[in-house]
Amino acid sequence: MLYPETINNLIECYKKLPGIGEKTAERMALYSLELDQEIIDLFVQSLANLKSKIKRCQKCNNLTQNDICPICADESRDHNLICVVEEPKNVFQFEKIGTYHGLYHVLDGLISPLENINPEDINLDSLLKRIDEEKIKEVIIAVKPSVEGETTALYISKILEDKNVTISKIAHGVPLGADMDYVDALTLELALEERKNITSHVE
Amino acid sequence: MLYPETINNLIECYKKLPGIGEKTAERMALYSLELDQEIIDLFVQSLANLKSKIKRCQKCNNLTQNDICPICADESRDHNLICVVEEPKNVFQFEKIGTYHGLYHVLDGLISPLENINPEDINLDSLLKRIDEEKIKEVIIAVKPSVEGETTALYISKILEDKNVTISKIAHGVPLGADMDYVDALTLELALEERKNITSHVE
Repeated sequence: MLYPETINNLIECYKKLPGIGEKTAERMALYSLELDQEIIDLFVQSLANLKSKIKRCQKCNNLTQNDICPICADESRDHNLICVVEEPKNVFQFEKIGTYHGLYHVLDGLISPLENINPEDINLDSLLKRIDEEKIKEVIIAVKPSVEGETTALYISKILEDKNVTISKIAHGVPLGADMDYVDALTLELALEERKNITSHVE
Repeated sequence: MLYPETINNLIECYKKLPGIGEKTAERMALYSLELDQEIIDLFVQSLANLKSKIKRCQKCNNLTQNDICPICADESRDHNLICVVEEPKNVFQFEKIGTYHGLYHVLDGLISPLENINPEDINLDSLLKRIDEEKIKEVIIAVKPSVEGETTALYISKILEDKNVTISKIAHGVPLGADMDYVDALTLELALEERKNITSHVE
């Protein structure tokens, strides 16, 4: 004898979400019974509309409810600058900072020969097309500093070599507020290599 | 610039669930985009039906989709035995063990003078009524061993004093597989007090 069918089904659905196991799903389903009708309605409506309402921007491939996302459509932003990121989430991370005013380009993955993800499997063609068609002056590569990230960054700089654009990469190093005890050796090595002069001593 | 509205709404809904913060809700909402349409449909349907389909059993107050829950309706179970629990979840915990074949009674709370939860606020009247009307021989009190649990247990045994029923309480002690180092002092005290003879030595 288990839970009533509707609750069982809801438990099964919650269990599909990342990081949610049997116990948490059970707790969430039982808690859902107590939610206000208003929230339930919004929940149902958002889920039901999700797949039909959310599309990819035809320019930058970011998540949007329109053909062109609000960022690409915003004339006040710097249309000479493209920040290349792995996934839509990263766009929102940069937007939360609020200091970047250029455009984005969402790759939807990183090159990974081990996982059989080749350059043609990620959204690179459209990046090339944008650089040819739009007046892009700088491409900032903002992917994570893993083997896949570095491979992707290298590949992008290769294919953009003969285009008239500056290519840059976000800085990697010791994060702010980090306890030096817990910074791993590779990060420290990178931080040392990419050190910046703060004063120059010339004899 | 935040996520598209539908995703924002979904994030807000996930955040209402217990233990889900901003970051997890974001991750869950973005992941929801990848769920199979089949799962989304089941999710939408379960949530939409939740409040209307799930009722309380008119006998034991457990969650059910019928007027009388499948446990109360099951003629093969022992209808002389009632296990009193705090919430519906506990019923399913006992059902998972599979060795208990009596009925249940869901209190929906425990007596707590501090939180102003009095005997009349929990589902005790219907318990009394069941003992008068049904042929109950034993009432097993299976609530947690907290102050509220003990108060509720004491209260139930008081009001059932003059009824012709046996009243018992589930055993409390050191849980199976527990490391003795981590068992708290109160549990140890209780375990010592409620010790059981395994052999009797008589001179």
